Amino acid sequence: MAKLPLYAAGITALFAILLVAAATEDNALLKQAQGIFQPLPKDMATAEFPITRERVELGRSMFFDSRLTIDANMSCSSCHQPAFYGTDALPKPMGVKQRPHPRHVPTNLNAGTSFVIHWRGDRTNLEDQVFQALTLPITSGQPDEKAVFDRLAHIPGYAPLFKAAFPDDPQPITLRNIATAIGAYERTLVTPSPFDAYLAGDQEALPPAAKTGLEKFINTGCVACHNGVGVGGGMYQKFGVVEDYWKATGSDPIDKGRFDVTKDPNDLYVFRVASLRNVAMTPPYFHDGSVAALPDAVKVMTRVQLGVSLNDADTGDIVAFLQSLTGELPVNFATAPVLPSGAVVPAR
Amino acid sequence: MAKLPLYAAGITALFAILLVAAATEDNALLKQAQGIFQPLPKDMATAEFPITRERVELGRSMFFDSRLTIDANMSCSSCHQPAFYGTDALPKPMGVKQRPHPRHVPTNLNAGTSFVIHWRGDRTNLEDQVFQALTLPITSGQPDEKAVFDRLAHIPGYAPLFKAAFPDDPQPITLRNIATAIGAYERTLVTPSPFDAYLAGDQEALPPAAKTGLEKFINTGCVACHNGVGVGGGMYQKFGVVEDYWKATGSDPIDKGRFDVTKDPNDLYVFRVASLRNVAMTPPYFHDGSVAALPDAVKVMTRVQLGVSLNDADTGDIVAFLQSLTGELPVNFATAPVLPSGAVVPAR
Repeated sequence: MAKLPLYAAGITALFAILLVAAATEDNALLKQAQGIFQPLPKDMATAEFPITRERVELGRSMFFDSRLTIDANMSCSSCHQPAFYGTDALPKPMGVKQRPHPRHVPTNLNAGTSFVIHWRGDRTNLEDQVFQALTLPITSGQPDEKAVFDRLAHIPGYAPLFKAAFPDDPQPITLRNIATAIGAYERTLVTPSPFDAYLAGDQEALPPAAKTGLEKFINTGCVACHNGVGVGGGMYQKFGVVEDYWKATGSDPIDKGRFDVTKDPNDLYVFRVASLRNVAMTPPYFHDGSVAALPDAVKVMTRVQLGVSLNDADTGDIVAFLQSLTGELPVNFATAPVLPSGAVVPAR
Repeated sequence: MAKLPLYAAGITALFAILLVAAATEDNALLKQAQGIFQPLPKDMATAEFPITRERVELGRSMFFDSRLTIDANMSCSSCHQPAFYGTDALPKPMGVKQRPHPRHVPTNLNAGTSFVIHWRGDRTNLEDQVFQALTLPITSGQPDEKAVFDRLAHIPGYAPLFKAAFPDDPQPITLRNIATAIGAYERTLVTPSPFDAYLAGDQEALPPAAKTGLEKFINTGCVACHNGVGVGGGMYQKFGVVEDYWKATGSDPIDKGRFDVTKDPNDLYVFRVASLRNVAMTPPYFHDGSVAALPDAVKVMTRVQLGVSLNDADTGDIVAFLQSLTGELPVNFATAPVLPSGAVVPAR
């Protein structure tokens, strides 16, 4: 250093200052992010819905078991496919007997972080969703709970699984217990991502473009709704705050959202804010799957919610951030269980 | 030993003789079995259908990809479900648009060991089966190959997978190549079982009941058809040699089998002999799934094929042998691949 020319020393000093400035800026961004988002917990058990190994095993089996629906050819995993990160890559799924569902499949991964379930929030929690689905015409097609129990009774391997999962119940095969078990299984399905490592303090977990995207995601105002542990999933919001959503998405028909549930004019075009975890893996987008590509979905959102027209570069950065929300598929979701053996003969 | 009373020495000698006799008998059974059956190879590649890592990866993705069929809601894995050992637990599967298949789903596990494919042998090999299925009304529902290619073109991640799997083809996305890739994947799906360990010389691999069952399986005459590497899958045979099959199974309608393919009177009620590998995991049974339980299926077979009425004890032993044909699910079948991202919008 002694022999270093003055200008070189000056450059070195400048470089050091820039490095410190960059690090300070990096730390400020991390601190800001830590105030807005939370990392995923190791599971989504609650005091009301605890997880036990036995319930998870039973619930996982039934989640994948196509024998429980009317024609014994669809299971929860038909729409919540592991290969598509808990979705089905369709705008709207087809239910039993070729009956179309009215809205796009939200992923069941990390779904326990959501404050309510379904696009219109008309399910209070995962267990409520399953409970209702078990006898709905589109989802299960079974006429009543007895029909569901009959199917389970035809598969001898289920009785001991129910007994183990609900040891205090003399008649453990109930709709409530089926829902509790499948809910317990779903509450294990968390996908920690590079962004979670970043929130835990690992600056290297995100590539530079993702950090730039995070900054733009914050500064553009996306975080007003997409915040918390789910990066969304924590509130309701009108879709189309500054512009009717269907003008940007081409949606047809126009869905009135939560209004159809509550009949409250304040709920017109209101939907549950979607969690953005694994969003890069779950096209198409929105309640009707009307937009196929993630960059387009980002542009639609900033336009109709925030009145901002994003250019391609900013959009690309935000997409890079959203890609950092992709976690690994949980092993107990990616891997099919071997189901209790038994044939059922549905009426045709 | 010097102080041992004479009678004790005698008993010891007798016991030793019995042990030797039992071991000799055990070895004779093993030798006999090794003459009738062969253990599974490590995969089912042939000179005509070699396996490459790239083809398997591509084929595995398409096997699980529901976006290739007409409503983008069914894949090969909808009927060949990992959770049911490559079957669907139904008498007969439901195809696309709620169109019923005419016959029961045979498992795709170890299917490359079969001399022809399908119950009536009207597919020459796995690749032929896939090739035809890609545009059949029940299986895929796609009107022509162009419709299939269009779906693949909408999923950008597939182009590099095809390029890698078929590097010498300037236009690698063809029906033939799709079939070759899915075939290559299926040719990796082998399930070595305790019986294979036994055939390799491990006497301890089978419990005593399974060995007794094996002996009865041989002596009853089952091995006339159920032999070789697949314990079946090597020949055609009339279903109902000594008695019309539908009188024992209750089948309705009566399927004329291979006759409907060849119009040869010798083929009336003739079917491909099913492989019995994993048979305990794949109820219901026969070409129409008309019998739900394995012991009943065993009794039907000995009755209508061999004129033998089995009692429950003998049936139980044979079932114990058949259970030793259950292998572990291959990891690349049990675990769903993460598919190339992309939404498709089928016409509704």
